[in-house]
Formats: sequence, C-alpha cells, structure tokens
Amino acid sequence: MVTLEEKVLAKNDELAAANRRWLAGRGIRTVNLMSSPGSGKTTLLERTIRDTGGTRPVAVVEGDQETRLDAERIRRTGCPVVQVNTGAGCHLDAAMLHGAMDRLSPADGSLLFVENVGNLVCPALFDLGEESKVVIISVTEGTDKPLKYPYMFAAADLVVVNKVDLLPYVDFDLGACRGYVASVNPRAEVVALSATRGDNVGSWYDWLAIS
Amino acid sequence: MVTLEEKVLAKNDELAAANRRWLAGRGIRTVNLMSSPGSGKTTLLERTIRDTGGTRPVAVVEGDQETRLDAERIRRTGCPVVQVNTGAGCHLDAAMLHGAMDRLSPADGSLLFVENVGNLVCPALFDLGEESKVVIISVTEGTDKPLKYPYMFAAADLVVVNKVDLLPYVDFDLGACRGYVASVNPRAEVVALSATRGDNVGSWYDWLAIS
Repeated sequence: MVTLEEKVLAKNDELAAANRRWLAGRGIRTVNLMSSPGSGKTTLLERTIRDTGGTRPVAVVEGDQETRLDAERIRRTGCPVVQVNTGAGCHLDAAMLHGAMDRLSPADGSLLFVENVGNLVCPALFDLGEESKVVIISVTEGTDKPLKYPYMFAAADLVVVNKVDLLPYVDFDLGACRGYVASVNPRAEVVALSATRGDNVGSWYDWLAIS
Repeated sequence: MVTLEEKVLAKNDELAAANRRWLAGRGIRTVNLMSSPGSGKTTLLERTIRDTGGTRPVAVVEGDQETRLDAERIRRTGCPVVQVNTGAGCHLDAAMLHGAMDRLSPADGSLLFVENVGNLVCPALFDLGEESKVVIISVTEGTDKPLKYPYMFAAADLVVVNKVDLLPYVDFDLGACRGYVASVNPRAEVVALSATRGDNVGSWYDWLAIS
C-alpha cells in the first residue's frame, strides 16, 4: 500500500512540475487555498476580487465534492472560474488542475487562485504546481488546530486566521495560535483578518502583492 | 487503484463486522462522531459526560492526527479514554478501533463514543463497527455543507447542528440546512443545539436514550 501511495504521489509530482513550468512560463502566480469546510475561502476570494479587480487579471479554480455553488458565487464577481467536482474524492491533484487550466485559459500574468476541497488533512499531500500554499482557519475552530493537523500547517507559506469579527463570542487565543503555527512551521507568515467585514484584508493584499 | 481501494475497504468491512459482533455481545452502544475540525465534537462529549454521568457507563476513543489534547480534556471529566493518533492518516478505521477497544476495555452495557479525525470527507467511507454515525456541523460553517459534502451526510443517522449560540452573528439558515440534509438523506434526524451553552442538549440526550 505504501509503495502504491508513493507511486501515486510520484506521478502527481511529475504532473505538478509540468504545471509549474507552464504557469511560470506565462507569468501566472498560482495560490492554493486550503482549509476545513466553512472557514471562509470563497468569501475571502469574493472580497479579494471585488477589492482589487483590475490591478491584475484574476482567475479561479473551485474544488468541491459536489455542486457548482462556489463557482456561481465567483462568477457573480465577474471573474473567470471553472468548477472541479471530485465526487467521493477528498482533494484536488495536479491532473485536475491541469484539466481546469485547459478549460480556464488564464491570461498571461494572471493571479490564479485554486480553492481546494474543504479538508484540513489530505490536500496537504498533493502538490498541484502552485507557487504558494495558503491555509485558512477561522477563530471558531479553536486555538489548537495547528498542533492537531500539523501536516497542513507545515506545508503552508501563509496562514490566514479568518473571522476575527467573531472573536468577542468565542474562546480563541490568537497569540497562542501564532505560537502553535511557529512550532510546526517557523517560516509560515500569519495574517488575522475578517473576510466578511474587511478587517485587516490589506495585509492579505500586501502578501499577494496586489494592493 | 480502484481494485486496491475496494480490497482495502473489504478488509476494513470484515474487521468492522467483527467489532460490531464483539460490541453487541457486550451490550455496548457505539456512536461514531464525525465533523470538520473545530465543530465542537470534544466540547459536546465533555458536556454529555458531565450532564449524564452515572446514567450509564461511558467510554471514549479519541482520534487525531497528532497530540493527546482531546484525550486529556475527556480524562478531566473522569471518563475512561484512549487516544489514537493517525499521523498523516485522515480517518479512523476498524483496525484502529479494535486496537483502542483492547486498551480501553469498556464495561459491558457502556455507551462508547468514538471521536473521529476532524474531516468531513474521508471518515464517511470507513465502517468502524459502530451502531450509529453522527455528523456535527456548526452554524459558522455555512448552510450549504450537506450539498457540498453529501457522502458524509448520506451516511449519518443523526446530524447535530452545533453552536446555535452564535446564530445572531453569522449568516446561517437552519430551515434551509434541514432541507439540504433531507435532500441527501431523508432518514437522518437533525438536532440543533449549543454544546458550550447547553441550549437543547436534552434532545441529544433523548436521541442517545441516556436522559
């Protein structure tokens, strides 16, 4: 079983490397957004597209087990988007991103967001050929998540702590959470914001270099 | 790959059937709790044990990728508990429950809670030999989750909608969510409650038949 897993991952890594070359050749910056279901990935994308539209062309690949609900939300912002449904599958892989790029044809120089299936476990294992991995957690999920799901946080370039508008109503320690992130991944940056209300989204745009 | 997956699942189903026979022979009722990370599984267990302790012996198996944090929380209630760490793994399986039962030795007639790894996708595929599957979502995760993750909701005997104390601060439509659950699984019951504040936990105890 381990051997087969290694073969599946090796094949995925080959396809991811091809994606990475194709994207780099066109100056497309690709950001893979990963989180639990309901942490606010789509809401953050909607606000990002609306706030920064025109600064740089943006395109989106939406991953979900089922439905086109998230692609429809993104389409309403006017941004090009394709939906990938994984069925019983638990993550996007490099072949799925390749197929989605074929359908999407992102413009040269684009910012390409990939919203992964909501899952704080499996997507961490699959390189898509992206430039950056962003993990989103919300303050309603509890302070201890970086310790309990360390593989995802170890893979992150940036950790977004979302829903800070709900901090008065939940038991969440932002300082402790930052410390837990640092303990599993000292190189990860952390940005705390509210995608619904807009608190501190400027730091996210700064990180994306599209402000 | 499909064939191997089928073999893995068939082997798991055999072990699950053996677990089920062993548990039934001892009058142990086993409930598998599944949800996204941070939906409140452990908090609901803490309250359940404190509110109903003595009605029936309770024991808990805690699943997480890493840490013993949840087992320590349960141990503070005085309840017997064992922690299973899956490492890079994304779900509990029947062999893991078998090993945990060996270490835990739940009393005859117990109520045995199994808290799965926080993941709204993969645990749905793996029968553990439990009597009931309970899926927990929180109102902070959004109304559309049953449609986007239908495999998990199709497997559920009961859906607990948690964190109703946060309803005034988030955009969540309980009536619509009940409809979405019914559309993917007409036989599932739905109970809305707050594990932190205690709203409507009596309905949960009624369902468990330990009130």
